[in-house]
Amino acid sequence: MITLFYAPHTCSLASHIALEDAAADYSTVRINFAADEQRKPEYLAINPKGRAPALVTDRGILTETPAILAFIAQSFPRARLAPLDDPFFFAEVQAFNSYLCSTLHVAHAHRMRGYRWADDPSAIEAMQRKVPESVGSCYELIEGKILRAPWVMGETYTICDPYLFTMAQWLEQDGVEPSRFPKVIDHRRRMSERPEVQRAIAEELA
Amino acid sequence: MITLFYAPHTCSLASHIALEDAAADYSTVRINFAADEQRKPEYLAINPKGRAPALVTDRGILTETPAILAFIAQSFPRARLAPLDDPFFFAEVQAFNSYLCSTLHVAHAHRMRGYRWADDPSAIEAMQRKVPESVGSCYELIEGKILRAPWVMGETYTICDPYLFTMAQWLEQDGVEPSRFPKVIDHRRRMSERPEVQRAIAEELA
Repeated sequence: MITLFYAPHTCSLASHIALEDAAADYSTVRINFAADEQRKPEYLAINPKGRAPALVTDRGILTETPAILAFIAQSFPRARLAPLDDPFFFAEVQAFNSYLCSTLHVAHAHRMRGYRWADDPSAIEAMQRKVPESVGSCYELIEGKILRAPWVMGETYTICDPYLFTMAQWLEQDGVEPSRFPKVIDHRRRMSERPEVQRAIAEELA
Repeated sequence: MITLFYAPHTCSLASHIALEDAAADYSTVRINFAADEQRKPEYLAINPKGRAPALVTDRGILTETPAILAFIAQSFPRARLAPLDDPFFFAEVQAFNSYLCSTLHVAHAHRMRGYRWADDPSAIEAMQRKVPESVGSCYELIEGKILRAPWVMGETYTICDPYLFTMAQWLEQDGVEPSRFPKVIDHRRRMSERPEVQRAIAEELA
C-alpha cells in the first residue's frame, strides 16, 4: 500500500496525478502548509526535509518529485509512464524533470520562499521582482527547445506531463503572460481534460 | 562514442567521475566559463541552457546531472553504479541526487550566481551572506539523516557518491565549517583516494 503525503497548490500534485495515471492502489494524507504542519514533529518524522510530497511505501519513504515519478513509472510498468527499456529516452525524461525541480521550480520559489536564501526583507522583495523574468526564461526554453507536443516527449505521454502541468498552474501568479507560451498553455488545457488529472485535483481541493 | 562537455570546478565533475567509474569509452571537451564560452553560439547549439555538463551520445545530447548519472549507470550495467533491478532502492538513489541538484546546489549557487534571482546588488550580497547557513543546513540533513557510510547508500557505491563528492568540494568556499560534518568529510577523503576520481580531477585541472 502506498500513501502520498501532499499539500494543495504544491508540486506534490505531479505525483498525485501519476498515481492516478498508474491506476495505483494508494491513499492520501493532506498536509496543511497554512498551519505549518510540514514543520511539526509528526511530519518531520516522515519527511525530515519538511516539504511535500512524501511517498510512504512498504519498503520505506521516498521524497523528491523526480524520484517519486520515476518510482511510480517503474512500479507500475503496465501504465507505460516512462520508456523503461530505453536508457537514452528515459534520460531525456529525467533531464526534463530534473530541469523542472532544479531550475523552474527554484525560480518560482523565489516569489513565496525567498527567506530560504536571504534574511533581508528588501532582498526578498528584489527576488520577488525578478520572478516573472526568471520563470519566463525557463518557459522560453521549454516552449522553444523542449516541449515536442502533443506531450512533453512527443507522441508518448510520460511522467514529464503531470510535472509540467503542475508547474504551469503557477504561470499567472508568477507574473508570466501565458499568451507568450501557446504550446505550454495548450498542454495545460489538454492535461486538465484528463480524468486522472481531474480526480487528483478534485481530491486535493475538496 | 560519448563526449562530455565539462567546466572545471562545476558539478560536471560528478558525471566525469561516473564515466571513469563505468570504464566508459569517452572523450571530453572543456568549456571555459571564465571566457563565457557557455554562452557562445557554438556551445548553445549543444546545450541551449548554457550550462555544464552536456553529454553528447550517438542518440542525442543529454543535460542535467541526475539524468546523466542514471544514464551512465543504465548504459554500463556491469559497473553496478545504481540498483537497476530494485525500483525502491533506485528511487532512493535518485531522491538523493535530486536533493543535491534542487536544494544543495541551489543554496550554493546563491554565492556566485545570485544574479539569476535578483538584479539589485545589495540583494545579491544578502544572498551571499546566507550561503553558509543555507548550505550548512543541507549538510546537517545529509550528515544526520541520509549518509549511511561508508558510501552514501551504505555498503554499495552508487552514482550518489561522485555527486556528493563534487558538491563537498565547495564546503569551505561556502563558509561551512567542515568539522561539523565528519561523515561528509570522511566520505570526501575516501572518494579522493579512488583512482577514478583522481583521473577525472587530473584531466579537468591539467
